[in-house]
Amino acid sequence: MLIGIDIGGTSSKLGLVDQGKVVKELKLPTKGHASADAFADALADAAGQLTTDNGQPATAIGIGAPNANQLTGIIEMAPNLPWKHDLPLARMLELRTGIPAVLGNDANAAALGEWRYGAGKGCKDLLMVTLGTGVGSGFIVNNQLVLGSHGNAGEVGHMTLVIDGRDCTCGRKGCLEAYVSIRGLRQTYAELDGDPEVLREEGVLCIAKAAQQGDAAALQTFRHAARWLAVGLANAVAVTGPERIVLFGGIARNGDLLMAPLRERFHASLLNIYHGRVDLVASALPDNDAAILGAAALTTL
Amino acid sequence: MLIGIDIGGTSSKLGLVDQGKVVKELKLPTKGHASADAFADALADAAGQLTTDNGQPATAIGIGAPNANQLTGIIEMAPNLPWKHDLPLARMLELRTGIPAVLGNDANAAALGEWRYGAGKGCKDLLMVTLGTGVGSGFIVNNQLVLGSHGNAGEVGHMTLVIDGRDCTCGRKGCLEAYVSIRGLRQTYAELDGDPEVLREEGVLCIAKAAQQGDAAALQTFRHAARWLAVGLANAVAVTGPERIVLFGGIARNGDLLMAPLRERFHASLLNIYHGRVDLVASALPDNDAAILGAAALTTL
Repeated sequence: MLIGIDIGGTSSKLGLVDQGKVVKELKLPTKGHASADAFADALADAAGQLTTDNGQPATAIGIGAPNANQLTGIIEMAPNLPWKHDLPLARMLELRTGIPAVLGNDANAAALGEWRYGAGKGCKDLLMVTLGTGVGSGFIVNNQLVLGSHGNAGEVGHMTLVIDGRDCTCGRKGCLEAYVSIRGLRQTYAELDGDPEVLREEGVLCIAKAAQQGDAAALQTFRHAARWLAVGLANAVAVTGPERIVLFGGIARNGDLLMAPLRERFHASLLNIYHGRVDLVASALPDNDAAILGAAALTTL
Repeated sequence: MLIGIDIGGTSSKLGLVDQGKVVKELKLPTKGHASADAFADALADAAGQLTTDNGQPATAIGIGAPNANQLTGIIEMAPNLPWKHDLPLARMLELRTGIPAVLGNDANAAALGEWRYGAGKGCKDLLMVTLGTGVGSGFIVNNQLVLGSHGNAGEVGHMTLVIDGRDCTCGRKGCLEAYVSIRGLRQTYAELDGDPEVLREEGVLCIAKAAQQGDAAALQTFRHAARWLAVGLANAVAVTGPERIVLFGGIARNGDLLMAPLRERFHASLLNIYHGRVDLVASALPDNDAAILGAAALTTL
């Protein structure tokens, strides 16, 4: 029995994980606690509730969070979390629960989840890319998570795709994330003179719906995104040579709108020695459970 | 005692390696043999000569070659070698010498050489980039060479730097290699309306000499190369987060002409979380020995 915790900007989810399945789940707000200690208390209480009915104690806690450094167990000044200082959350939970806890970057957790329980099962070398508000990624190389020398490797979203290109939230220009995140797709649609009414709704589902109704700018938005993402993924392949790439997140769930042009462009973008050797698939994990399963998978490293 | 063999397009070098030093060396032509078997015979003879004086037999042979696949032990249709079919050279040498042989890509061998004996010693995560006729690279992640699922990972030179950019020898467009290889620098110098007399000489030393004499186009050629290479290296850092990058090859040996603007541009190109965390250094191995040491290092995996 493992406990997986996914720390989000608004709410945090905890799940009891048994053999790759979430068997019980709890949710609590991330915001509104008097202090970081109070938040850790609330998490520890929730973790206790998950296991009491069960009789059987959890053996480990895995925590996935934005800006988390697995090597230190610290959440490093995450811009979307309430605490603007380093938070040693793994240790804080260990002290409160008596259960060993591991903290990891949420994108790495998702990669591990896909690798242990999802579409990446059995791959020695895997790349998982999350398309959402940001573009996150996690690499498995030689059956190990790539952490890098300082615990912050695996940032496909911040590879420069276009020198002197679009402004990125990271302060630099031309990052892949500036083109294929939710914000990136919305910017593309606006630049293609798409219907401003469509963009009144948040996210990318609005553009996907417009595309399904034949909106030319919306269709073009997905084709452009596919082209950019194809180059970004091919560049990542040139580094680690994965046998499979798993795409995760809302944008990847728009079915063939993205995936059909992406498959075509991806193969055209690959160096010849990788042709036919890299699968491109969508996540096989249930949406609600993926983050919890990934966090739990951090404990199995 | 190890034997390192470096297979080049024109000649092949063999060296006897004792504790990270080349203690004896032999050279033979790669071209002009009646068959691949005759070439293997000649290599086996030379390997025998290396050890006879010594009394002590070699325990392993490491072979570095272009287009070599370490997972299969086969040189796969290398465009610059005389044999246009797959060559299982590791096995061919084992059969002739009775000594276990390992074959690896020459860029990976160079990375291993730097990691075991050179400027990358002690790094858990390392990137080695060779700047020459091509742009080769080898990655160490978690103290292991990154081979990828099919043995062909680590191709930084064929990451797309400019979408729809310069033609590359690989048949695609805009690869880093098209900008920062010898051919790339010469093309840049020509595009900057450099002196055609300078380009009568082969290689890049001619451009370096012109730069040292104040030739504006030549100086600008190195500044452009630094800028492109900086982005390419920063993109590789975003994937594996190495603590050090070692640059190898003729172009990197032009001292501050390349390295001074490169250091500046590299730090400006890095995502903030990597700032101050990635060293950029030139190779510390003696030029003549590096390829042999690297090949020998393949046996220590």
